[in-house]
Amino acid sequence: MNAVELIKKKRDGKAFSTDEISFLINHYTTGHIPDYQFSALLMAILLKGMTVSETAALTNSMLISGKIINLSSLKGNKVDKHSTGGVGDKTSLIIAPIVASAGIYVPMISGRGLGHTGGTLDKLESIPGFRTDLSLSESKKVLKKCGSVLIGQTKEIAPADKLIYSLRDVTATVESIPLITASIMSKKLAEGIDGLVLDIKTGSGAFMKSQKDSIRLTNSLIQTAKSFNKKVIAFITDMNQPLGNYIGNWLEVYESIRVLNGKIKNDLYALAIKLAGAMIYLGKKAKSLQEGECIAKQKIESGEAFKKFLEIVNLQGGNVNYIINPEKYPRSRFVKKVHSVKNGFIYEMNTYQIGMVSLELGAGRRTKDDVIDHKAGIILYKKIGDDVKNGDIICELRSDSNSKITLAEQMIIESLKFSKTKPSIPKLIKKVIK
Amino acid sequence: MNAVELIKKKRDGKAFSTDEISFLINHYTTGHIPDYQFSALLMAILLKGMTVSETAALTNSMLISGKIINLSSLKGNKVDKHSTGGVGDKTSLIIAPIVASAGIYVPMISGRGLGHTGGTLDKLESIPGFRTDLSLSESKKVLKKCGSVLIGQTKEIAPADKLIYSLRDVTATVESIPLITASIMSKKLAEGIDGLVLDIKTGSGAFMKSQKDSIRLTNSLIQTAKSFNKKVIAFITDMNQPLGNYIGNWLEVYESIRVLNGKIKNDLYALAIKLAGAMIYLGKKAKSLQEGECIAKQKIESGEAFKKFLEIVNLQGGNVNYIINPEKYPRSRFVKKVHSVKNGFIYEMNTYQIGMVSLELGAGRRTKDDVIDHKAGIILYKKIGDDVKNGDIICELRSDSNSKITLAEQMIIESLKFSKTKPSIPKLIKKVIK
Repeated sequence: MNAVELIKKKRDGKAFSTDEISFLINHYTTGHIPDYQFSALLMAILLKGMTVSETAALTNSMLISGKIINLSSLKGNKVDKHSTGGVGDKTSLIIAPIVASAGIYVPMISGRGLGHTGGTLDKLESIPGFRTDLSLSESKKVLKKCGSVLIGQTKEIAPADKLIYSLRDVTATVESIPLITASIMSKKLAEGIDGLVLDIKTGSGAFMKSQKDSIRLTNSLIQTAKSFNKKVIAFITDMNQPLGNYIGNWLEVYESIRVLNGKIKNDLYALAIKLAGAMIYLGKKAKSLQEGECIAKQKIESGEAFKKFLEIVNLQGGNVNYIINPEKYPRSRFVKKVHSVKNGFIYEMNTYQIGMVSLELGAGRRTKDDVIDHKAGIILYKKIGDDVKNGDIICELRSDSNSKITLAEQMIIESLKFSKTKPSIPKLIKKVIK
Repeated sequence: MNAVELIKKKRDGKAFSTDEISFLINHYTTGHIPDYQFSALLMAILLKGMTVSETAALTNSMLISGKIINLSSLKGNKVDKHSTGGVGDKTSLIIAPIVASAGIYVPMISGRGLGHTGGTLDKLESIPGFRTDLSLSESKKVLKKCGSVLIGQTKEIAPADKLIYSLRDVTATVESIPLITASIMSKKLAEGIDGLVLDIKTGSGAFMKSQKDSIRLTNSLIQTAKSFNKKVIAFITDMNQPLGNYIGNWLEVYESIRVLNGKIKNDLYALAIKLAGAMIYLGKKAKSLQEGECIAKQKIESGEAFKKFLEIVNLQGGNVNYIINPEKYPRSRFVKKVHSVKNGFIYEMNTYQIGMVSLELGAGRRTKDDVIDHKAGIILYKKIGDDVKNGDIICELRSDSNSKITLAEQMIIESLKFSKTKPSIPKLIKKVIK
């Protein structure tokens, strides 16, 4: 076996054996296959594809390149959720405490903001003191104590994925369904979970813009999860407008607190209940998805979910005073309310662009070294289907830089399209696939 | 413009502008685009292709990465030949003196042996003292004096090609028609020629095994040559059996001497006359291809071509005594005549395998650092269509290693297939394309 022959094989559209995939991943991870050969291979994979069993073998090789967390000492089911990411998607912050308070372990490894989307880790770190870089043994302690832990990918988890992901990022080989599948699943399987709920976003603010691609990715993820004997339920959900009304790190924590407090019952709440319900079902604390959703709602109404959130924040070093009294959190130097200059119904929101506005205001990173302004972001007053009058407030922009706000205002206005008649509102849950 | 966006563009099957190609080649050559990005790009080019104008732009960028030899001070036409390479293909050694003796300049930049095929430079270097590493100014002097010079690719000629070729070799991106085209044409155009004759091999001993691929490559080369206003004629020729009867570096020089002396009139002679005739026609010393061939034959009959060969060898430092008295050349320690154990007509020769036998005997390189044994090789006594009796000599193997001969004998026997009835002999010239 040698690298050139294997690259040639994939280039010519042939399928790898499990041994060949294992050879490639092991030799790349140990530096015996150089980057320039692996990137040619990645391009061949992107253009020629991989079968279900190749994808499973790739996932496995990446998984066993690192540690698999052993949670067998914790009695009870362990379930996680993965979202492909979008704008305003803060469901993890709501779901983890709901599901943990229902008696299921939720060991959650999350990522950082990428391009126009925010990242769960960045959001959590907007809570002063919150540590997402716990070691695996610290994580296990937190998980044991309160039923959930929210951390980042450690060096011990799927190091092959980390290496390969960096290379994909700079060689235009990100958008490959088998590569995305193996990247997601190798990390999720390393968490030591029994079940997984998938939230695959589709629409203008998602990485997968078309529903067709989203379904292809979903099927690939489900087939791979099943080949590892993991229970899985996938939701294809809307990302044609931001989820909820708050975008930006602390602003999203704030909206999550409001949902956990039972103060908001918007699309974010609806999706969080759906996903949490499915996790509760997979965790065998409900006999059906409906019963799971019902339990999820109760956990909010009873205040248990909010209490659980305080517990998690506290155990991970975060200052709970800001969770209890969020209005005490520092404000941005500049707050600008954007008024409409048109009459009509909003029928389209360029959600990618809205994500970029948030980044522009300081909530995201242009390069790896950029420092995030946790306070910055957008509060949406209007969404698709809303009847807007000239002069109405569309949204509020927050930033420490006035010039950034000026640019952001222009961008946000350009991102909206108006119609004279009331448009149909995009369906939140497009499809459920088991 | 940035590398990732451009890789993405080709990955998605879009065509590059001339500026984009120039950006890619310049930035790769200067080290601003790393190997791992360029290899992903090469794989995308291999799988998605390039248009005629992209290929021309690529050729041009690679050409102007180095020096273009200025031959305007030499009055008269400059014509070269390029062959895609095969087993026993020593036509360059015969053609250069024929065409130069007809009053046309032949500035020839050749390559080394690659895989199962020999290289003109290695063959020439089997002549004691012969220097293929002349500087550009030395080359020009030789060319001016005798009308031809046979050298290797210098550092000054198309350095981008040298860099890219090394990367293609280790990333399974050799077999791409636009990349092959740009690699060949950038070097040929740097020679400062007016016309080019192409010899595209097809068959079991060629790099392009199928005639369809050979025609595709030929068309790509012709279109590119024409976009640089170069006159071009292409021959698609047979490589289903070795060309001529001698394989191995000195053995091929020997056979060339015999052809130049008018002693051999085999397939090698026939092809050399065809190609030289076309060069004489492109060099405007004949009004038709037929007249060109006629002149080529005369140059052999009159002894002028052989004299010209002596002149070239002498000017490039080679010992002409071995050309005049080739039987004085050292012999291999072991010479083995292979006898047939079958009766029948040879109807198939695995020419790739025969090339590998020659390499095995010491005539080629397995790695870049291998030292070539110039004496080693094969003399074929039988070729396709020959009626062979049990006990007849099929060929003679020459090597300084007896164990290599034992292995080679086995391989050569396996490379031949016999039939009871006389098979048709592969047509030498399959197609002429102008």
